[in-house]
Amino acid sequence: MNEFQFIYDLIAPGVRARSDVLLGIGDDGALLTPPPGESLIVVADTLVVERHFPATLPADDIGYRAAATNLSDIAAMGGEPRWATLALTMPEMNAVWAQTFLRGLFTAFDEAGVALVGGDTTRGPLTITVQIVGSVPPGLALTRRGAQPGDLVYVSGTLGDAAAGLRLLAAAPADTAAQWLAQRFCRPSARLALGRALRGLASACIDVSDGLLADLGHIATQSGCGMRIDADRLPLSDSLRRACAPAECLSLAASGGDDYELAFTVPAARRAELEAALAGTAEAVTCIGQVVAGEGVVLVDGTGLPITPAATGYRHF
Amino acid sequence: MNEFQFIYDLIAPGVRARSDVLLGIGDDGALLTPPPGESLIVVADTLVVERHFPATLPADDIGYRAAATNLSDIAAMGGEPRWATLALTMPEMNAVWAQTFLRGLFTAFDEAGVALVGGDTTRGPLTITVQIVGSVPPGLALTRRGAQPGDLVYVSGTLGDAAAGLRLLAAAPADTAAQWLAQRFCRPSARLALGRALRGLASACIDVSDGLLADLGHIATQSGCGMRIDADRLPLSDSLRRACAPAECLSLAASGGDDYELAFTVPAARRAELEAALAGTAEAVTCIGQVVAGEGVVLVDGTGLPITPAATGYRHF
Repeated sequence: MNEFQFIYDLIAPGVRARSDVLLGIGDDGALLTPPPGESLIVVADTLVVERHFPATLPADDIGYRAAATNLSDIAAMGGEPRWATLALTMPEMNAVWAQTFLRGLFTAFDEAGVALVGGDTTRGPLTITVQIVGSVPPGLALTRRGAQPGDLVYVSGTLGDAAAGLRLLAAAPADTAAQWLAQRFCRPSARLALGRALRGLASACIDVSDGLLADLGHIATQSGCGMRIDADRLPLSDSLRRACAPAECLSLAASGGDDYELAFTVPAARRAELEAALAGTAEAVTCIGQVVAGEGVVLVDGTGLPITPAATGYRHF
Repeated sequence: MNEFQFIYDLIAPGVRARSDVLLGIGDDGALLTPPPGESLIVVADTLVVERHFPATLPADDIGYRAAATNLSDIAAMGGEPRWATLALTMPEMNAVWAQTFLRGLFTAFDEAGVALVGGDTTRGPLTITVQIVGSVPPGLALTRRGAQPGDLVYVSGTLGDAAAGLRLLAAAPADTAAQWLAQRFCRPSARLALGRALRGLASACIDVSDGLLADLGHIATQSGCGMRIDADRLPLSDSLRRACAPAECLSLAASGGDDYELAFTVPAARRAELEAALAGTAEAVTCIGQVVAGEGVVLVDGTGLPITPAATGYRHF
C-alpha cells in the first residue's frame, strides 16, 4: 500500500460531505467556502507516541484523541469546527493499524460535524498533527484575556479522571471505575456545545489540557489578574474517589491534565444568566473560585490557607 | 527554556503583523478575518528528518524549506497565502537550533507576506508540519482536474536541480555550479506570482514535488487524459549540465522531485494570452508537451519514441 492507495482506499471513504467543501482531499490543497461575516479559528495540536500517549494505546483511541484534543481547542474559543487536516507520520504503512486509527479519528470528526479536507502522510516515528479550522460570529470568540477581579471561576465536568485513567491503562483495568477513568483518557469529550453556550457570557475560557492550575494560570497571566481556587470545590467523579486516596484525587484534579474540560470565568453579576443558559442542556459546570487582583493562581483549603499540590502542570519540554 | 519561553522569546518577535489577524499565537486558537467573498485554500506538508532532508542540513534551510514546500502548494492552487501554523517536534529544546530554524522559516514567510498564527511544539524525533491557509477569488482556483486533450503542457524554471543539489550537499560543494544546485534544494522558490498569473488561464496545475512525470501523472489521472512530454524540451540549468552527464540530467529532470516548480496545462488557443500575461514578469516557462486522449504520461525522444527514465517519482511509503 502506497500513499495514494492510503488516501483513496482508507481515507476518502470516511470523509464526511459538507456543502462548504468545494474540493477536498486529492489536490495540492483543499478549497473551502468560509461562512460569510464570521471570524475563522485555526488550531493545531500534535501527539507524539510515548510522549502524549502510550505506544500500547489502541489505534482507534489514538485517532479519537488526536481529533478530540483539537476539537477541544475550538470549544475553548466558543467556535464551530468545520474542516480538518491530518499530518500523519507512521513508521510503516500498516493498513490494519491505519484503518483502525482512522475509525477513531472519523468517529470524533463525525460527532462534531467536521470534514477531513487534506493533510500529508509521511514515514517516520509515529507523530500525529491534526489541525482544525472553525468559525465564530465576529466579536464572540472566547479568549484567555478578559477575566476581571470579582469574576467567578468555573470548570465543566469532573477533573483528574484522565490522568488517573492513563495510570490505570498500563494495568489493563478490570473494574468498572478504572475502565471509566481509562475511557476519560482514551476518548476525551470536546465541550463544543458548552463553548458555544458561553459566547458573550464567559469573560475568559481555556481547555484543561496541561492541568487545571497551569491552564488557569494562562488566563490569569493573559488577563493580568490572580485567582483563588477552593480545593474542596473541585469536581471529582465517583470513579476517581473510588480509585484514588483523597490527597491523590486533589493532586490529579489540580494538576493532572488531559481532562479537556473547559475552565472559564464569568462576571458575578451574570451568574443567573449562565445558569439559565445551561439549564436544560447536558452541560454540568461547577464554580470553583474567584478572580482576584494581583497575579498567580492559589489553591486554598476549607480554612482559606494555600495548598501546594504535587505538580504544576504538564510541560512539553 | 520551556515551551512558553520558546513561544514568547523566540517565535513571537519574528511574527509578521497582518491586519486580518485578530488574535495570533498564545491562545487556544488563532482568530482571523477571511477575505470577504473569497474561497479559502488549506494546505499541509510534513518534513521528517532523514526522510525529506539530511540531518546535517543547516537549521535555517530546514525552516525555509518547511515554509516553501507549503507555499508552493498554495502557488499551485493560484492562491494568496495568508496565515500559517507550525507543528514542531524536536528531540530537545535547543534554543540556538530553534532560533536558526525560525530565521529560515520566517524568511520564507516574510517573502510571501504570511503571518505565523499558531501551532504546537512537542518533544520527539525531528518532524515539522507547516500548514498554510490562503485564499483565491471564487472560481479561479487552479486544480488538477481540468486538462483536456490538445492542451499544451508547461513547466516553470528548470528541472532536476534540487535532486542534483541534494546529492551534492553531502560532499560540501565547492564549485559555483554545485553550490547553486544545493541552494535549489535548500531554498526552493514557491512560484506564487506565477500561480496567480495562471488564474483563469491554466486548465490544470500542480507543483513538482515528487518528480515531473509523477506529478503530471496526477493531472492526467484526475483530468482523465494522457500526456506526451518531449524529453528534449525539459528545461535544464547550465549548472545541472555542468554537474551531470546528459542521461543523468534527463533522469533528474523527469523524476528527481523537490523542484517546486509549477507544471500546468493551457488550452492551445490561449498560448498567446499566456505569453502576454507573463511578458514583463520574471516568470520563465517552457512548453514541454501536449495533453492527449487516453491515459498515462509518456516521455518521448526527438524521434517520438517513448523513453523510460530511471525512476518514477518519490514515494512517501
